[in-house]
Amino acid sequence: MTLALDLAARGLGRTTPNPPVGCVIVQEDEVIGRGFHPRAGEPHAEVLALRQAGEDARGATAYVTLEPCSHHGRTPPCTDALIASGVRRVVMASRDPNPAVAGRGVQALRDAGIDVSVGVLEEQATRQQAGFRSLIVRGRPWVVAKYAMTLDGKVAAVDEGNGAVTGAAARARAMTWRNTLDAVAVGSGTLHSDDPALTTRGLSGGRDPRPVVFDRRARSSLQARAWRPGSVLVTAPDADISVFEALGVTVVRAATPLEALTGLGRLNLSSLLLEGGPGLLSALLDAGLVDEVRVFIAPKLLGRGLSPLTAPERRMHDAQALRDVTVETLGPDVLATGLLSDIPRL
Amino acid sequence: MTLALDLAARGLGRTTPNPPVGCVIVQEDEVIGRGFHPRAGEPHAEVLALRQAGEDARGATAYVTLEPCSHHGRTPPCTDALIASGVRRVVMASRDPNPAVAGRGVQALRDAGIDVSVGVLEEQATRQQAGFRSLIVRGRPWVVAKYAMTLDGKVAAVDEGNGAVTGAAARARAMTWRNTLDAVAVGSGTLHSDDPALTTRGLSGGRDPRPVVFDRRARSSLQARAWRPGSVLVTAPDADISVFEALGVTVVRAATPLEALTGLGRLNLSSLLLEGGPGLLSALLDAGLVDEVRVFIAPKLLGRGLSPLTAPERRMHDAQALRDVTVETLGPDVLATGLLSDIPRL
Repeated sequence: MTLALDLAARGLGRTTPNPPVGCVIVQEDEVIGRGFHPRAGEPHAEVLALRQAGEDARGATAYVTLEPCSHHGRTPPCTDALIASGVRRVVMASRDPNPAVAGRGVQALRDAGIDVSVGVLEEQATRQQAGFRSLIVRGRPWVVAKYAMTLDGKVAAVDEGNGAVTGAAARARAMTWRNTLDAVAVGSGTLHSDDPALTTRGLSGGRDPRPVVFDRRARSSLQARAWRPGSVLVTAPDADISVFEALGVTVVRAATPLEALTGLGRLNLSSLLLEGGPGLLSALLDAGLVDEVRVFIAPKLLGRGLSPLTAPERRMHDAQALRDVTVETLGPDVLATGLLSDIPRL
Repeated sequence: MTLALDLAARGLGRTTPNPPVGCVIVQEDEVIGRGFHPRAGEPHAEVLALRQAGEDARGATAYVTLEPCSHHGRTPPCTDALIASGVRRVVMASRDPNPAVAGRGVQALRDAGIDVSVGVLEEQATRQQAGFRSLIVRGRPWVVAKYAMTLDGKVAAVDEGNGAVTGAAARARAMTWRNTLDAVAVGSGTLHSDDPALTTRGLSGGRDPRPVVFDRRARSSLQARAWRPGSVLVTAPDADISVFEALGVTVVRAATPLEALTGLGRLNLSSLLLEGGPGLLSALLDAGLVDEVRVFIAPKLLGRGLSPLTAPERRMHDAQALRDVTVETLGPDVLATGLLSDIPRL
């Protein structure tokens, strides 16, 4: 299943609105088929793995990271393919949260006499499917806030823009997130001060996330590097967006943070990497819309500077605790991650 | 030598102005004597270890964390005791930075025909002796800044005082620092908002550090828990200190941060744990007087709040990097430590 999860990960950022799925076919302790869903419209993981296994699949065990689909979408049901292949056993990590599947995949396989187990490495699989689950259950992307701060809690010096906070290893890790999340968002302040390109750099086979700019008044510079075909502007219902439309930018109009994220969900964005600044992060966090936090901490002291968060105002006792916290060192820096939301299940 | 360092650590916070020293006597792979310097005026580590070894010390090896003294202080020279004991070999971790010793201990032993090695676990020993070295070489304490912040870099909520930031394991660790550093300092703002007791709690055999309050105007409440016999008030040269003198508080008058620390050095305080708040830490850091930083990071988000540092103002590129960084998890929290200064050597 670990191998199946690794395979599935190769589809992250490419499969939306479909889930990332990996499948491994094992016959007498030998892997005879591997597959992952490469992108929406292309074959599912199970089909690719079974194709590689061929006739040898008869009597084998299929490991799959998500319950196989039992409905006709853009491709025929994977349960049919598994049944036709003659596999004896199917082991799956997690159930599909899609109401159109929801246990019917398991049932179809069992009805065909196949031995089915569910729940192997379920936590890892569910985590990998956070974006897919968020989109299908909540209708909005899984929001991952990322920032880098000094050991005195500063993300930037005053009036400076983007002085590098962390080292190369941390920046490389952040690039793998841009590669695997559907979209990357910044506020108009960050657009103005940093003019980030929001591209994936230094990764072979990398692809760029879709840039999303939160700019209530729609007054950002059209010269900003974040504007490219497919970029999204999130703005107020009454903002004048004519120049952005002319630029080919997709516009989401929203009066509240929740409307904004629901609008991004309608664009089939299942995951959003929030890269700044403090105003945007504080607004989404205050609205309870940040699901996960990934923080780089650089072992240095700045002094006066910008804080990653400027709101809400509450007592220390009411600070929002992260769950499933991980801590890792990356070169000189520390990476701490944790969840603020439960990953959506059925 | 690891055992000798562990023994030496038991004297930390008790030996000033003497160094913490540990000594182990080994005869044919067997430990036959252990000693550490328990406090100034009492016997040195070597003498206690040799006393335990007795006649068996003849031909043995002595491991000692610091070059033995060769001069008459409150006790006779340890080099004499080592020579008289008949040990064949002396292994020491570090040389004494005291100009009155400075290699003369090594020389005296060699002159007596003893085989001498220097530099075993030297880094650990030097680190353990940071306070002693700072006092003897620079005439001021080794300053360790400690604070606890949330993952968004806040040490407290606005107008709240001391809401607990970290968990029990982190607080217990901080108590071991109060137990082993000579003094603990706060600014008048922290005294006013938190009224900390600045005592060592929850440690068997613990002793309280000497409280130091930085209060330029000497207007802190006399009811504050930090005032007790031995407490130190650091204040401006022209402040009215009569009520504090009446209370039995020791007063250090200083016009600059450096004068303040030199004044504390004159009180034989070799190490100072700086516990807040942001104003005091920023002032000492800006003056280049903070030597070491120990930061707890709690995996939670506050929002608006107080930053650990409010000055100086500089660019991110000029942020002050920590050296010898360590990262550790303590219960749910992270502890990151590092040095800003070199530990004073000869």
